[in-house]
Amino acid sequence: MAGPITIAFDVMGSDFGPAEVVAGAAGLSLEAPQIHALLVGDRDAIGDTLKEIRHSGERISVHHAGSFVAMDEKPAEALKSKPDASISVAAQLVAEGEADALVTAGNTGAGILACAQRFKLIPGIRRAALAAVYPTRRLHGEKEDPFSLILDVGATVEASADDLVAFAVMGASYAKIISRNPNPTVALLSNGTEPLKGPARVVEAHRKLKEMPGLRFVGNVEGVDIPKGTADVIVCDGFVGNVCLKMLEGVQETVIELAGYAHKSKLRWRAGLAMLSSGIRHLKEVTDWQQYGGAPVLGFDRILIKAHGRSQARAIANAGKVAAKAAASDLSRTILAGLPK
Amino acid sequence: MAGPITIAFDVMGSDFGPAEVVAGAAGLSLEAPQIHALLVGDRDAIGDTLKEIRHSGERISVHHAGSFVAMDEKPAEALKSKPDASISVAAQLVAEGEADALVTAGNTGAGILACAQRFKLIPGIRRAALAAVYPTRRLHGEKEDPFSLILDVGATVEASADDLVAFAVMGASYAKIISRNPNPTVALLSNGTEPLKGPARVVEAHRKLKEMPGLRFVGNVEGVDIPKGTADVIVCDGFVGNVCLKMLEGVQETVIELAGYAHKSKLRWRAGLAMLSSGIRHLKEVTDWQQYGGAPVLGFDRILIKAHGRSQARAIANAGKVAAKAAASDLSRTILAGLPK
Repeated sequence: MAGPITIAFDVMGSDFGPAEVVAGAAGLSLEAPQIHALLVGDRDAIGDTLKEIRHSGERISVHHAGSFVAMDEKPAEALKSKPDASISVAAQLVAEGEADALVTAGNTGAGILACAQRFKLIPGIRRAALAAVYPTRRLHGEKEDPFSLILDVGATVEASADDLVAFAVMGASYAKIISRNPNPTVALLSNGTEPLKGPARVVEAHRKLKEMPGLRFVGNVEGVDIPKGTADVIVCDGFVGNVCLKMLEGVQETVIELAGYAHKSKLRWRAGLAMLSSGIRHLKEVTDWQQYGGAPVLGFDRILIKAHGRSQARAIANAGKVAAKAAASDLSRTILAGLPK
Repeated sequence: MAGPITIAFDVMGSDFGPAEVVAGAAGLSLEAPQIHALLVGDRDAIGDTLKEIRHSGERISVHHAGSFVAMDEKPAEALKSKPDASISVAAQLVAEGEADALVTAGNTGAGILACAQRFKLIPGIRRAALAAVYPTRRLHGEKEDPFSLILDVGATVEASADDLVAFAVMGASYAKIISRNPNPTVALLSNGTEPLKGPARVVEAHRKLKEMPGLRFVGNVEGVDIPKGTADVIVCDGFVGNVCLKMLEGVQETVIELAGYAHKSKLRWRAGLAMLSSGIRHLKEVTDWQQYGGAPVLGFDRILIKAHGRSQARAIANAGKVAAKAAASDLSRTILAGLPK
């Protein structure tokens, strides 16, 4: 792709407010000369922050949007009642070619829906998928990356066998291009490793995936394989994936639980936990999957990166870099080429 | 119920072989005068163990079975090719009234299928559910029990809205009678707490559960609420429940993961972990849900208790006690009374 890549940032609706998102884009403008940031949201709030913060003026532009969707609003209703919501305006700019990709730290459902209303699905894809990059025990690919990809985690609550096959192709393409893992292993989440285990849609997806050329399908995996990282890409419907991902976040609380036992029990345990406290903090950081440059929404001809609502400037800048990498790559073409003919 | 309660023990097919199951029943015969143990399996193996071990001869009887289903066999095929398998013979004895309940530490699928072929479903129940009792952070009921119940975890892979409603009633009845929690909270597992979140079957189940008199339905819970123990009873289909339960077992490995980080990192962390090692061992024991007297299969007019394949004598005896408690109680009647009219 020639010239700079333009990333539209929905600066509104995140937990820390517009200033944090603007600060992330401002930082990016100084360190990533190939990226142009198009900030979409309240022009006064954006202007106030830009006045205070170092940035490269020629790599940032502003597009006003009169309202925004709050975190606790219902996506469909909010988008309908607020046609000038920042996420809708930003998605429209991307759809019209004014920007190449979209980053938001706001309401996840509103982000996906605003794109679904304006972006085109890649031919052969019927449903988009939200993918989460999360840390595992096993290292992956040539870069020995500790992360796996799990999709869908909430965009498509009910997925057919064909949807699951498409998710597998999308996840493998993303791992190849963004995670630079040239031959990623792909597994199907089920209640047993045997090919006939699971609901009908999962059994059918297994059969179809086994026949897919160019896909390194390693069969079914079980719940315990998610934190282990048995496969580079794990495929499931959005319902199961969402439940699992939220359990995974509960890992932090397990550590706190251990602390609770120690508190009630031996002095020796308390001393051990005190010595470990920085280790536990470290583990909490490592298990916060949403810090890793955000979660990509796959399946559209343009990419949406959903950054964590609590993202600080650093995480927003990372999300912008991932979005630019996806936009500059041939991700959509790789997905298209991998789909069943 | 007058007179002793007879529990049929399938002594074959567990990881430690017949001697361990026989030893559990032998221990039970000495400490629980109200229970009669009917040992089903290879008569020579049973006789050899009984000769070596203290037991009350008048509370144990033996019924020979010529074969058994191994842990790695496919249930349907194995039961068909081995009509004299111990689990089938034991289920038949229970169905004919020769015993009041069944305990097995063998192949889970074969146990459920053998019962499904011979037991009657409680009127109004269309599918059985395997329930797992697991430890949580929150304490439950008047006894301040640290355990929650999650069902189904693998008996019914695809459940309809009505099945989920029936699982809720069965789980609440079990919590009332066996866990002595007179007014248990019941929640539906979904991808969000709002009533309209989830696949159609879950949304419909939510609507129906809200209207159920006599059920303390607290709405939807998410993945993170499983280890927390937000509700006393969590309801889901067997596919999602199985995946979640296996992730929960992975908690042990998270602790090992923490140890791995510590190993690679600071000396201070290593020292802390060494001091915590007995605490970690304790946590591993507490999180091994399958040690708690086994997992009940609910929905039949007779109860099946699935003990862990690695159960030792103590766990088998506990499973026998739970089975006797369920058989002596009005569990089936409580379930029947709670179902929608």
